[in-house]
Amino acid sequence: MSEEKKVLVEVSARHVHLSQKDLEVLFGEGYELTVRNTLSQPGQFAASEKVKVVGPRGELNMTILGPVRKQSQIEVSLTDARGLGIKALVRESGELEGTEGCKLVGPAGELELKEGVIAAQRHIHFTPEDAEKFGVVDKQLVSVDVCTEGRHLVFGDVVCRVSANYATAMHIDTDEGNACGYAGETYGVVITEKH
Amino acid sequence: MSEEKKVLVEVSARHVHLSQKDLEVLFGEGYELTVRNTLSQPGQFAASEKVKVVGPRGELNMTILGPVRKQSQIEVSLTDARGLGIKALVRESGELEGTEGCKLVGPAGELELKEGVIAAQRHIHFTPEDAEKFGVVDKQLVSVDVCTEGRHLVFGDVVCRVSANYATAMHIDTDEGNACGYAGETYGVVITEKH
Repeated sequence: MSEEKKVLVEVSARHVHLSQKDLEVLFGEGYELTVRNTLSQPGQFAASEKVKVVGPRGELNMTILGPVRKQSQIEVSLTDARGLGIKALVRESGELEGTEGCKLVGPAGELELKEGVIAAQRHIHFTPEDAEKFGVVDKQLVSVDVCTEGRHLVFGDVVCRVSANYATAMHIDTDEGNACGYAGETYGVVITEKH
Repeated sequence: MSEEKKVLVEVSARHVHLSQKDLEVLFGEGYELTVRNTLSQPGQFAASEKVKVVGPRGELNMTILGPVRKQSQIEVSLTDARGLGIKALVRESGELEGTEGCKLVGPAGELELKEGVIAAQRHIHFTPEDAEKFGVVDKQLVSVDVCTEGRHLVFGDVVCRVSANYATAMHIDTDEGNACGYAGETYGVVITEKH
């Protein structure tokens, strides 16, 4: 395994990002999220609060990730989406136009989102220093070879995102984690040439 | 896409195979499965009957596939396994030694399986003619390149199974289907050289 192009792979389970406005509808006026634990991306955290996500076919309690964002967004695996009865498009975070919505239920109220349910496109967060080292630029699509015991695979269509606010790590959803036999600390090798 | 090495990809959702003995415990003495619809593999069918699979954490109603087999076997995705609270090993069909069991509940009775819950190793059924055409032999591991819109990937560790009783098709589970953006009729290209 090429040491220079090795990236930590992390699995993101389903979760919700809320706008301050939606947070207040669900939890009450002036509400602030409680940090349960911090995440690998600087400043990001899992909150103690959970919210119920309701679709036409089912519902799931989901962890809220903070801090609040400009627009609420629900990130699910396609398995989750099927259980909810929602068609989740594979999208980059924040690209919500044309996506399906859902109902959110909190302890103080509920609301109907017109859009916001996505399956996150697999992606790698890069610091500018690591992007240069890996030879990639923001928005570039690469492949990542994840060599696990018994379920080796190469993910294509992995989008690179570069920012000084990031820690370098690849994010995949639970379906993708299962498909590559993810178990504990897992690394992938970034492939920039077409294969 | 190389036409010669193109294989139909099919997604297998969770299902149960039963032995005649276990079928009778669950549905009554002398019981025979009812064919709901035939499957792509010759002689195989989805039955009208369902069985409840119960784990320490959850339960799922599952379709039974017929005909009956020598030993009962529960095939789930790793997402399903997590919901059930069962650790499913990635195994070839029929290789059940050391796997976890579960409880099965039917209309006439219930039973505890000591073993039998697996996540099926991704595999390709080949007719002997197609195996020769593809240049593969029984038990060989190959890779399969599935080029879908937005979630292109290459599955490694795909085991070839060759029999005159098969129709040529690749089988993956729902996690794997979601990870490659499976939607409707999907084909993969078999890669026999190491990459």
